[in-house]
Formats: sequence, C-alpha cells, structure tokens
Amino acid sequence: MAPGVPSQAVYAERIKRAQAEMKQQGIDILLVGPSPDLVYLIGYDAHLSERLNLLIVRQEGTPDLVTPVLESFLAESCEPNVTLRRWKETESPSDLVASLIGETKDVTLGVSDQLWSTFLLKLQKAMPDGSWTSGQPVLAHLRVTKDQAELDNLFEVARLTDEAWHEFVESGQISGLTETQAMERLAGMMDKRGLGRSFGICASGPNSASPHHHTGDRVIQPGDAVIFDWGGLLNGYHSDVTRTVFIGNPTDEFRKVYDIVRRANQTALDAVRPGVAAESIDKAARDLITEAGYGEAFLHRVGHGLGMDVHEEPYLVGGNTTPLEVGMVFSDEPGIYLAGKFGVRIEDSVVVTETGGKRLNEASRELTVMD
Amino acid sequence: MAPGVPSQAVYAERIKRAQAEMKQQGIDILLVGPSPDLVYLIGYDAHLSERLNLLIVRQEGTPDLVTPVLESFLAESCEPNVTLRRWKETESPSDLVASLIGETKDVTLGVSDQLWSTFLLKLQKAMPDGSWTSGQPVLAHLRVTKDQAELDNLFEVARLTDEAWHEFVESGQISGLTETQAMERLAGMMDKRGLGRSFGICASGPNSASPHHHTGDRVIQPGDAVIFDWGGLLNGYHSDVTRTVFIGNPTDEFRKVYDIVRRANQTALDAVRPGVAAESIDKAARDLITEAGYGEAFLHRVGHGLGMDVHEEPYLVGGNTTPLEVGMVFSDEPGIYLAGKFGVRIEDSVVVTETGGKRLNEASRELTVMD
Repeated sequence: MAPGVPSQAVYAERIKRAQAEMKQQGIDILLVGPSPDLVYLIGYDAHLSERLNLLIVRQEGTPDLVTPVLESFLAESCEPNVTLRRWKETESPSDLVASLIGETKDVTLGVSDQLWSTFLLKLQKAMPDGSWTSGQPVLAHLRVTKDQAELDNLFEVARLTDEAWHEFVESGQISGLTETQAMERLAGMMDKRGLGRSFGICASGPNSASPHHHTGDRVIQPGDAVIFDWGGLLNGYHSDVTRTVFIGNPTDEFRKVYDIVRRANQTALDAVRPGVAAESIDKAARDLITEAGYGEAFLHRVGHGLGMDVHEEPYLVGGNTTPLEVGMVFSDEPGIYLAGKFGVRIEDSVVVTETGGKRLNEASRELTVMD
Repeated sequence: MAPGVPSQAVYAERIKRAQAEMKQQGIDILLVGPSPDLVYLIGYDAHLSERLNLLIVRQEGTPDLVTPVLESFLAESCEPNVTLRRWKETESPSDLVASLIGETKDVTLGVSDQLWSTFLLKLQKAMPDGSWTSGQPVLAHLRVTKDQAELDNLFEVARLTDEAWHEFVESGQISGLTETQAMERLAGMMDKRGLGRSFGICASGPNSASPHHHTGDRVIQPGDAVIFDWGGLLNGYHSDVTRTVFIGNPTDEFRKVYDIVRRANQTALDAVRPGVAAESIDKAARDLITEAGYGEAFLHRVGHGLGMDVHEEPYLVGGNTTPLEVGMVFSDEPGIYLAGKFGVRIEDSVVVTETGGKRLNEASRELTVMD
C-alpha cells in the first residue's frame, strides 16, 4: 500500500499524547500556530499570515482552534477533534484567545516554535499574568520518533529522490549551465515523480565552500566541485540528500577530501545505535575529520532530525546528550569547506533501529564525475 | 531601464531612516529576523530555520548581524552596512545577542513581526529586564509608502501577471482539469515570464465560496464559477490579482453577483485619495454590497498592503483610521461568498497618487466565460 495521510483517529490519538506529555512537563496550555506542529496534531495546514490561526490545547478536553472566518471553511475538516472559534475581521483574535483561556495566574503556557512574534507579544499583553515558555519539549517529544506510517512516507520520498538523482547524473553535461539551471533540471526530475518542492542548493566551484550557498548565476565549468543539497515533499514528509560531483578529472586534493568526507559519513552511520548520545554521532565524524587534518573546515554539526520539518529534533551537535531512540530519523552530513577552493558534503538520512542506523536513501556515494 | 534591486547605498539610507524612526517612537533596539523586513533593511534574504539570524539595530551606529558561521559567507555581502557577529554550532546565539546589547534595564526592544517565538522566548530569558514590544510600527512606517524603484518593480510584476492571465484565458478548455492542474497551467505562464512563485488559489464551484480555499483535486465542470487568486515575484516584490470566470453560460444569479462585486471594486478604487482613512475604502465597497443585499456574504476586509510581503500594511479594514498616503500600495478585493453555491472576488492592486487611486494591473474585469 502506498504511504498516505493519517485518519482523524490518528490525530485524536496525537492530541491525547500531547495532553499526557503536557501533564508530565507541567505545561497547562499548549499554543500551536501554523507549522508542521499543527499539521502533525490536527492535520491542518493553516495559512501562515498576519491573521491568527491558533490551536489551544488544555490538559483535558477538546482543543479550540481559533481561526479567521474566511478560513474557517477549511478548518471544518478538523472537527470534531477541535472546536472551531471563529473571529471576524474587525475582532481581536488575541482577546478571543485570552477569553477562551481565562485566568492565567500560575498558568504555564507553552508556545510552538514557529509562531510569529507578533502573535506572542499580543498574547503576552492580553495575558500578562501567564508564565510563558517554549512548547517545543512537548511537541518534539511527540514528533522525534516516527511511527511506521511516517517511516513509510520518509522511505518513499527518499527512494524517489534517489531515483531523481540517478536520472540527473545520467542526464548529460551540466558544465555550461548556471547553478540555477542545473538545480532546475534536478527539480524537474523530482516534480515528475510527484514530489512537492521543498528546497534546493546548487553550489559550484568556490561557492561549494559556502555550506548554505544561495543557488545563483555562476556558470558551472570543468574543474568545479558541485554540491547538490536538495529535497522533496511527500504527504508532508521531506527528503534531504547531498551529493558532491566533480566536473571533469578530479584533482588529487578533491579526491583526498572526498574520501575523508565519505569515510566520515560512514563512521557516523556506524556510531548510530539506541541509547547513545546525539552528540556522539557528531563526535564520531568530527574525530575522523580532525585526525585527517581538516577539523577546522568542518563548519557545522553532523546532522539534524528530519520529518515534517527539514530541520527538527534531534540535532546531532556537541552538547546534545539526548539518547538516540528507535524511530528517530536524522541526516548524516559531514562536510569539509576550503574557502576560495571547494567544499565536499555527503548527506544521507538515517533511521535508528534496534540494531543500529539504517539509511533511507542509497544514491551512490562513489566519487561521481559529470561533464 | 528594467527595474532592479537596490544598491548598498539605498540600504545604508534605509538603516538611517529606521534609526530616526526608532528615536521618534522610543524604540531603543530593533531586532529583525529573517523576513522581508530584513531584506528591505539590508538586502539579505537570510535562511529561515532553527539557527538564529538576527539584525540588531541601535539608534546610532552600524547594526550587528548575528549569523551562524556556516551562513556567514552569504552575509558578507551586507558589509560594511552591518558588522557580522558569527556564532558557532555549539554556542548560544541568544547569549551572543544579549552580550552585544548589554544592559537592558529601561531599554525598549522592538521585535520584527515574523521572528519565530522560539527566538523571542530565548531572548526574553537572556534579557529579562528588557521591555519587549513590537518593532512593526517602525518597520511598517518605512515600508508602507513605496519609492519609485519599488513602484517600478510592483508595476512590472503586475504587468507580467496581466500578460500571463491574458494568455491563460485564451489557452483553451479548463473544464475537465482539476483545480491543481488549472492553477499549474497558469503558474507555468508566470514561470515563463521569469516571475518567481509566490502563491496561487484555484477554487471551483462550491469551493469558490471559501475565500482561502486550498487548491485541490476537484474537477472543474460546466456551471462552475472558478476563482483564481494568484501572484508572482519580481526582485522581491509580489503581484496579487484575483479574477473569477464562469464555465459555460453564466446563471442569472452569478451575473448579478458578479456585477455587484465589479461595481464594489470600482467604488473602492474611486474612494482612494491621500488623507482618507484606510477603513473608508473598506466601507465604500461594503456599503455598496450591503445595499445590494449581500453584506453578510462579504466575509473579509476589502484589502491589504502589497509589496515585499503579500500581506502588509496598510490593512483596509474597519477600525483602521490610518490616513492613506501617496505611494501606499494595496489590494482592492471585494468578494461575495454564497455557501454551497459559489463565490466571486475581483482583485486589483492600487497605488495612491496625488489625484487618487491608480491600478497596477489592468487584466479585464468583464465577465469572462471559459470552456
């Protein structure tokens, strides 16, 4: 069966799990704005704008969904898991939220990460007695381990992304294209597999030494390292893959660096198992790269969680002692960046299983030469 | 000359204007996260993620741009208008911000609207003595009236959007397509004119009665009203147009409602002149629709500002007494929505000139029939 989207019963269960976790963590009210957090909890991809959409979850009972009248037709699909609370254009939605919540003395309100500050400031003003904190520990607790249906989506979007990459590598010369044109070719191969557009970086030549380069008008040419870091969307779940190719005959330095990064990617994977600290995966890759003499050139953490957000918990970064659990999914993406010259990054997505890490994507990690 | 992007000198001037406005409004520190606000001030389209990018503007001097090391290569393009303050993956960016700001007793900190709450909560915790407020009054004051270069971009993106619409209307049958397919055809016509993708709603039949319908799999069929509400991006500036077509021979009720909405659109335009209250434009359209017997079916305000955000100030809504000024740009989009039947919306963008409102887009507002 093809992976799909959850039923209303799944969302009802997720709300119950959120409420249990709120009790555990001492969050009295959880406030969730438009974001993957909201989609996860109630299946509603609310419009992100200056008009407030806000889910109010209490420790018991049916949550309220505060929504502008003109969007309430869409939100009706979430009933009866939520009670709709509509506000008209000339009404104050933060006053409505405050009246629905009532007394806030000694009440802890947890806010979803991506809610815009404009709303938080107005809510704080409308409920000045409340104790305001992040709702992230509750939401991340729910989302950080994936259930089988989520894993099915993540494996499928990764598989289709691999397919697109294989087609791209065989698609002919990219030398002479701009970064934008090369990325567009690859994106078209994602499109035709029915994947939604998520993000895409093509960084060529010296630009590949800038990890989050903005894809631009530089023309790809022989002698370039070219990094492709891209993903697609399937039923709300992202893929996230990076491959680095070389145009023409690779230099010895590129070969050397590529080999180090590839070994670091494998070493990080090999370090994955339930119970080890998230930071230990970063350390495994970092130690290898440092011993090879490129420690200062590995500019970022080795990975981030992947799911309905491209970046989510767990973050594989020094200082994060969170133990890995079965069902966590994250990127494994060591990189070496030599300013003015080139960069290499190799990224796979990995799920934690009882026996260790398992890659979601299997596009070749061999040094790939393109024209 | 084709419209383009501003020079660094323009950004330097905008920072100075922001600082003058901060003094006027008693904002000591302005904090701006990734958003059109940031692009407007320094020309930097920062990556929006869990890694903090934040511009710190004081009333005097060069602003700091706090940025993660791995993105700092991109941010270098903003020097010397900003001083880069890089943070490493294992450092706390909110502690860095707090140390750069220093003492916050009796200090008012204004925050940009779209900064994620996760950052605001951490900043509030790192600077508990500060007085936190919205930075929107400062930023909106700068952005609400457009300079000539901005108007050039807005007129050009509107003109190209009109062109795409004309091509679409002549492109043959849409009956039998899903909403998604029809929207994709129109989007392709935007793409080929070099416009970036912004947003697109296609709402057919009864779905057209839901103003912010999510474009979906419903098949367009004879007897449908079909609303297209879409826009494109040029140099960071949006177009935003709505046209409602009918598939086949329009019913008398549709003709009647269409005519009312078209007159309301014209009446709102005619009410535009410098000095009148923003709400008076809404009232002009609303009075006409109410007198025609459809007041309850006009579910939203008549318009919103348009520029680097699709929705920005000024909002043309009851209660907003802000006087219109020359150079303001906003939508004029009355609508009537009859649940279970159909909706009609007609939307143009309008700039305020000395002598009144001038439309940016001129795609035909005549009742248009498609197959």
